[in-house]
Amino acid sequence: MKIAVIGGGSLYTAELARGFLARGDILPLSEIALVDIPEGADRMAAVSGLVGRMFAAAGLSVRVTSGFDPNVAIDGASFVLNQFRAGGLAGRSMDEKIPLRHGVVGQETTGPGGFAMALRSIPIALDMAERVQKLAPLAWVLNFTNPAGLVTEALVRHAPKVRTIGLCNIPLIFKRGVAKALSVPAEQIELSMIGLNHLSFARVFLGGKEITPLILASDLGVKELVANIPGLDPSDPAVQAMVRLMRRIGRIPNPYLRYYLMPQAMLSEEVRTLAAGEGTRADQVMRLEAELLARYREPDRTAVPAELDQRGGAWYSEAAVEVIEALITGQRSVLVVNTRNDGATPSLPPDSVVEVDAAVGADTVSPLAHGVLPPEIAGLVGAVKAYEQLTIEAAVTGERDTALAALAAHPLVPDVGTAVGLLQDLLEAHRPFVHPGFFGRADA
Amino acid sequence: MKIAVIGGGSLYTAELARGFLARGDILPLSEIALVDIPEGADRMAAVSGLVGRMFAAAGLSVRVTSGFDPNVAIDGASFVLNQFRAGGLAGRSMDEKIPLRHGVVGQETTGPGGFAMALRSIPIALDMAERVQKLAPLAWVLNFTNPAGLVTEALVRHAPKVRTIGLCNIPLIFKRGVAKALSVPAEQIELSMIGLNHLSFARVFLGGKEITPLILASDLGVKELVANIPGLDPSDPAVQAMVRLMRRIGRIPNPYLRYYLMPQAMLSEEVRTLAAGEGTRADQVMRLEAELLARYREPDRTAVPAELDQRGGAWYSEAAVEVIEALITGQRSVLVVNTRNDGATPSLPPDSVVEVDAAVGADTVSPLAHGVLPPEIAGLVGAVKAYEQLTIEAAVTGERDTALAALAAHPLVPDVGTAVGLLQDLLEAHRPFVHPGFFGRADA
Amino acid sequence: MKIAVIGGGSLYTAELARGFLARGDILPLSEIALVDIPEGADRMAAVSGLVGRMFAAAGLSVRVTSGFDPNVAIDGASFVLNQFRAGGLAGRSMDEKIPLRHGVVGQETTGPGGFAMALRSIPIALDMAERVQKLAPLAWVLNFTNPAGLVTEALVRHAPKVRTIGLCNIPLIFKRGVAKALSVPAEQIELSMIGLNHLSFARVFLGGKEITPLILASDLGVKELVANIPGLDPSDPAVQAMVRLMRRIGRIPNPYLRYYLMPQAMLSEEVRTLAAGEGTRADQVMRLEAELLARYREPDRTAVPAELDQRGGAWYSEAAVEVIEALITGQRSVLVVNTRNDGATPSLPPDSVVEVDAAVGADTVSPLAHGVLPPEIAGLVGAVKAYEQLTIEAAVTGERDTALAALAAHPLVPDVGTAVGLLQDLLEAHRPFVHPGFFGRADA
Amino acid sequence: MKIAVIGGGSLYTAELARGFLARGDILPLSEIALVDIPEGADRMAAVSGLVGRMFAAAGLSVRVTSGFDPNVAIDGASFVLNQFRAGGLAGRSMDEKIPLRHGVVGQETTGPGGFAMALRSIPIALDMAERVQKLAPLAWVLNFTNPAGLVTEALVRHAPKVRTIGLCNIPLIFKRGVAKALSVPAEQIELSMIGLNHLSFARVFLGGKEITPLILASDLGVKELVANIPGLDPSDPAVQAMVRLMRRIGRIPNPYLRYYLMPQAMLSEEVRTLAAGEGTRADQVMRLEAELLARYREPDRTAVPAELDQRGGAWYSEAAVEVIEALITGQRSVLVVNTRNDGATPSLPPDSVVEVDAAVGADTVSPLAHGVLPPEIAGLVGAVKAYEQLTIEAAVTGERDTALAALAAHPLVPDVGTAVGLLQDLLEAHRPFVHPGFFGRADA
Repeated sequence: MKIAVIGGGSLYTAELARGFLARGDILPLSEIALVDIPEGADRMAAVSGLVGRMFAAAGLSVRVTSGFDPNVAIDGASFVLNQFRAGGLAGRSMDEKIPLRHGVVGQETTGPGGFAMALRSIPIALDMAERVQKLAPLAWVLNFTNPAGLVTEALVRHAPKVRTIGLCNIPLIFKRGVAKALSVPAEQIELSMIGLNHLSFARVFLGGKEITPLILASDLGVKELVANIPGLDPSDPAVQAMVRLMRRIGRIPNPYLRYYLMPQAMLSEEVRTLAAGEGTRADQVMRLEAELLARYREPDRTAVPAELDQRGGAWYSEAAVEVIEALITGQRSVLVVNTRNDGATPSLPPDSVVEVDAAVGADTVSPLAHGVLPPEIAGLVGAVKAYEQLTIEAAVTGERDTALAALAAHPLVPDVGTAVGLLQDLLEAHRPFVHPGFFGRADA
Repeated sequence: MKIAVIGGGSLYTAELARGFLARGDILPLSEIALVDIPEGADRMAAVSGLVGRMFAAAGLSVRVTSGFDPNVAIDGASFVLNQFRAGGLAGRSMDEKIPLRHGVVGQETTGPGGFAMALRSIPIALDMAERVQKLAPLAWVLNFTNPAGLVTEALVRHAPKVRTIGLCNIPLIFKRGVAKALSVPAEQIELSMIGLNHLSFARVFLGGKEITPLILASDLGVKELVANIPGLDPSDPAVQAMVRLMRRIGRIPNPYLRYYLMPQAMLSEEVRTLAAGEGTRADQVMRLEAELLARYREPDRTAVPAELDQRGGAWYSEAAVEVIEALITGQRSVLVVNTRNDGATPSLPPDSVVEVDAAVGADTVSPLAHGVLPPEIAGLVGAVKAYEQLTIEAAVTGERDTALAALAAHPLVPDVGTAVGLLQDLLEAHRPFVHPGFFGRADA
Repeated sequence: MKIAVIGGGSLYTAELARGFLARGDILPLSEIALVDIPEGADRMAAVSGLVGRMFAAAGLSVRVTSGFDPNVAIDGASFVLNQFRAGGLAGRSMDEKIPLRHGVVGQETTGPGGFAMALRSIPIALDMAERVQKLAPLAWVLNFTNPAGLVTEALVRHAPKVRTIGLCNIPLIFKRGVAKALSVPAEQIELSMIGLNHLSFARVFLGGKEITPLILASDLGVKELVANIPGLDPSDPAVQAMVRLMRRIGRIPNPYLRYYLMPQAMLSEEVRTLAAGEGTRADQVMRLEAELLARYREPDRTAVPAELDQRGGAWYSEAAVEVIEALITGQRSVLVVNTRNDGATPSLPPDSVVEVDAAVGADTVSPLAHGVLPPEIAGLVGAVKAYEQLTIEAAVTGERDTALAALAAHPLVPDVGTAVGLLQDLLEAHRPFVHPGFFGRADA
Repeated sequence: MKIAVIGGGSLYTAELARGFLARGDILPLSEIALVDIPEGADRMAAVSGLVGRMFAAAGLSVRVTSGFDPNVAIDGASFVLNQFRAGGLAGRSMDEKIPLRHGVVGQETTGPGGFAMALRSIPIALDMAERVQKLAPLAWVLNFTNPAGLVTEALVRHAPKVRTIGLCNIPLIFKRGVAKALSVPAEQIELSMIGLNHLSFARVFLGGKEITPLILASDLGVKELVANIPGLDPSDPAVQAMVRLMRRIGRIPNPYLRYYLMPQAMLSEEVRTLAAGEGTRADQVMRLEAELLARYREPDRTAVPAELDQRGGAWYSEAAVEVIEALITGQRSVLVVNTRNDGATPSLPPDSVVEVDAAVGADTVSPLAHGVLPPEIAGLVGAVKAYEQLTIEAAVTGERDTALAALAAHPLVPDVGTAVGLLQDLLEAHRPFVHPGFFGRADA
């Protein structure tokens, strides 16, 4: 079994290798083929070196190859992992800063920042999918590239013959967090999940019984809801209102929901951080990655540095490994993935991608049915899905008016006028990475 | 055939009478029973007097009765028209002013103003429906009371045995406007319409052929799109962007869409008008109504004063009459109404109310199918529908958290914190008219 | 406005002309172009002659042309009427006789006879549709060719760019019959109809109020249900059971339902008639047509002979004219047609064709929603629809196994073994008219 | 954990005990409470004795209790197993014989026999469900009582608060059979299944890859398809046609499909067997059970006699145990069950029960989505579902006309007249066990 890793120079590749090593008994892995762009050659050498040492130290004969030609990596692969970052962390840094100039939240995946990242990522993802269809038509593409839900839907719509599953480590982080807080094994926790990537809502089960209301009523629930909003005061009436809303719905939101419920608080915090010279999250990650790379290059190192989790990669490999295992063994497992809705909820278009618990295996991914979403969720999630569909259409057509419609449809963009200005700045900043059609006409 | 008019003291009653007179040959009308609250006794006397003179002058023997007991009016009626205004124009004036203090658009039907009006109107509408079920179980309720879509959905959900149709005069105004602009008879124009009341989207047909793109490309289309935004400059890039978006969608929006696309411009205009001492629209209407009532009381008057159209009632009676005619004659007609979705579009919940062209007659209202909505429309309309569902739930339960969830779900309310403040002020202002449950607990 | 008539040599063409004459004031008809096969030259000459005299006598300047090249007839037409009969009445006669040999009902449209007719008709209908797409891309095809539902679905599936409406005169015959029995104008009767062609179910409204239960409880209802079954005794317990079933459902079935409810009685009657030397219905019609053609040829004749109604064409032209009128004027009408389900009932596939009341006009046909079918109807109608889908697939692919699956799926075919024998005989009999692929392999 | 067994005197109880013993390490079983009717006291004593010895021999301290009061057994149970047989094997024997007199197949679950069994079983199942709701409201009811799909749907519709799962051992028999034929562990085989109980269709996966076409092309597939039809000749053209149809569909049918595809062959075989004095299957089982009971009573016996599998119970306990395990542990499993459709396929009503692979656990049963059924399956399955819905309505209302509509809707009943006669005879034969309403009026 060969696995191709697109964006193989990412530091996450080492985390992936750790996951494969842990299940070396079950996964019949023979080759990991890394591919990246030439500008990332040094990084990839460091990453590839560490991964090779890891397998060698474990006594597993897995070939670790690396190169710049995606076709070589993809050819004959059973699984193709997308973890590339179009435009790099420098691009992300711009995504985090430009919206602030227009009074809108700046964030890697949510809002105008995620929009710009989607415009950069989707063309590459589709190019890779085309290669997969030719060189490894039976392979499964596992997409981690952000915005993961958007990129997965682009693949599902525009490369329908390629079998794609979108993955994110947040559901696993959440599951492990609950298990740890309750001092039970993670295997006894099950998540019932529905929504979009970075905008999903969970019900939690322990030993087959639902414990969601218990969590929501506890400090754990409040913490989950507000801990990710730096500077927020749990005694603030607005924060308390937010917690009450979630209890009312009876589901635990993905922490990214905070950008929709308290955009002004989030925006203020971002502006403050930037003004204080701390940089955006991308800037911080860039510093962190430099340090981590130095560690990767330590010649005797045969393990992932502990600091990688601060980078955000916790349980990342677990998400990949459990899907791969379900697909290659005889038995189906219920896992949280991003896949076609197909009736998982009638509140979203059947052909759109949702984040949902699904039965994975038997050559298929079958999302479990969740019925109608409560209106508190349905309205917001539906609006974001509409934005996503328009963004995908813009990314593949290069039509400015479609891009404008996408931004105008986003709940965090208050006004058509704001959308006009944002679009102008974002396209200008990322010109080398987006569809050239955007610059064919000068009418937006 | 008896018709009961709830809110019979409204000046619109005379416009209704004009419509019935015009079809006196077809409608077998025997009685119009007006009912209003005692505070409106004087108004109702003036209205009733004029209406009585109108029928007499036409030589029609239609009884015009008036009183304060809804049961007397409803008993045995074939049609019950809702045109009451809970809290009067004074209440509307507050709806238009309070949101401005929170930086949000203040409007009779759209946004927090419409939310407050719904909280006041729904309990009365349901009370009337209960009486209809007992005293006139086969009657049709025609609801004009605003927010008309919300009130109709409240009736459809919570008084399902009562047959309700929601009506608005905007589709007819639009149809007549197109016919006039094209110099063709209105009968040759057909509208295909889908969306929500005050948030619907039309395709236009002339002699059986679609002319929507022609209208959108013409000055007429631009005018329809921007004329209702005072002070807007057609050369403003944002305005041009808005026009381009509509051309892209290929449908002509209800003019209220401007509140969603350009909320900041609308807000500025409202703040400016108020600061200039012109009052809100409600304040202007109060002045206008005083003048009109004086005209109504002229002893020799047997016709509706021409100024009534400035009040906003153009084609109001036409909307009622064409529905009544379709229901009592043998042949079905295709009319624009507010009714249960039931598959008219899979993009909205099947049990929710939409504004749509429907076949009316044969004891049923059958909405025509429009298929999936384009994402530009689906996201916004779905979000507003979610707000509507929560508002209805809040109105009938008196739960503060539900009311909070409703406001927080509205696309024009930017933040949970803003929703908390708005809710506090709106409930306080309208305390006598809304569910007492809102004041049973002090937790919001 | 030019109308092309495929199968123009049919005697029904004169009936069509009568309908166009009656609405000469509204329909801007300039040409009727008849086309038929050379074998039908004499018939077409007689028909064309009569039709020409009819228009001339009425003082209308409508060109009546005839020929053998469909392209000439179709070129530039606004409407194309299918009323051709593939294989002629001789083919129908075989369809009525062959099934009897296998112990199965023999009938023009229902059962194996209809199956064989579909295999002959569909290839021609699709060939004509291809010409329409090239030569008259905006034309509407009005299909009367039997089995009308099946042929219409074949067109809707395999010529989706051509706009097709399937028509049948039975709904109009029924409507007129009810009006006559109740001594009211037909305009006051409305039908709410759902099901398949020759297997639909009606609710009846008079002056806007439902009268279906009254009809079902009356002699009229019983007569409608059993009158078409010669020799049936209303005191027979089985007949009484059938009438009770319909009262239970609350809908009045198309008279063809008798073939499904009492197949053995129908079969016995067919066998008896044949044995008595009376021939099948096709044989009787052939005799009748010879007499009618002689009348058509009478040089002074300028009107349709009264005997045509015995042929079965009553209200045939009305069905065509009311659809044409709705499509070319500005206003939509509610008419019974065969069109895509699209949610008219969730009990049948959305992409399949149903017989249903629909709003016709504004360049569209929008079926009205009927909700879930009661199980008494849903099971049978669903099974017949499955047979229809397989028959269409067989007709366009020429695959024997598909044809076998179609026959085996028909509720009137009791057994796979019977299906094998029937298929063999039917294909052999109609070899010149069906897809040649059926004879490419010898494996059924 | 307490398990109540309704119909505890069934010989299958011992098989159940064997299953619980095999998973004694995982299932925290404390009591098995058997309940049966007084007429079955002797049988229950024998069964209870054997089961008690089995647990004792295994050293497990599980209480085995028995009695005639269902409330005692159900009170506090975590699971309630339905395996009662209303009317006993004597009733089944009549179900197998009466239809033959009307020229229709006589079978325990399929056709008029299953109809009569449903009329007897449903009232008891609903009575038990009512007790469960009161005495064990959180219990899961596992229904094995035949016709299992019908009885499960009756529970789902008429006792919606009780959580019911319908089970059958045929899917497990099939899975084990495939695994054995391929010499692989059963764990590597997964079934994707959709349809109705005894009318479902499977796709088969080995190690995650589909092998259905391989099986259908092999002798194994042919054997599965025809082996259950005694006396059928694989060289018979009808048999070959049937095999070809299944290959075309690409799914492997439940063996009961033979009653629909070759009813006349099945009927002939049944008539022949009866004429030869061999009795029906019920008669044979009665003889077999007498012998088995003698074995059960052997004082030293602590194991199930091997002959039980001939009775038909193979893997019966496995079906129960794997569901119980999934519901009480933390992890969900994908299992074949009978449960509400809820979108598993849009080709059947969403509120009806289907046999389908579902994710079981986390307090829910979530059927996996299978999309639209191919017409070869959809027509038949839809017709049988309509029959099932009508049968359930008849069982709970005691309306003769509803029962008549049910029988008339069954694909194996050729005629309304036949349905009238069948209904008369079946109700007469089973009068003590069916709804008394059937005898309140004498109108069928």
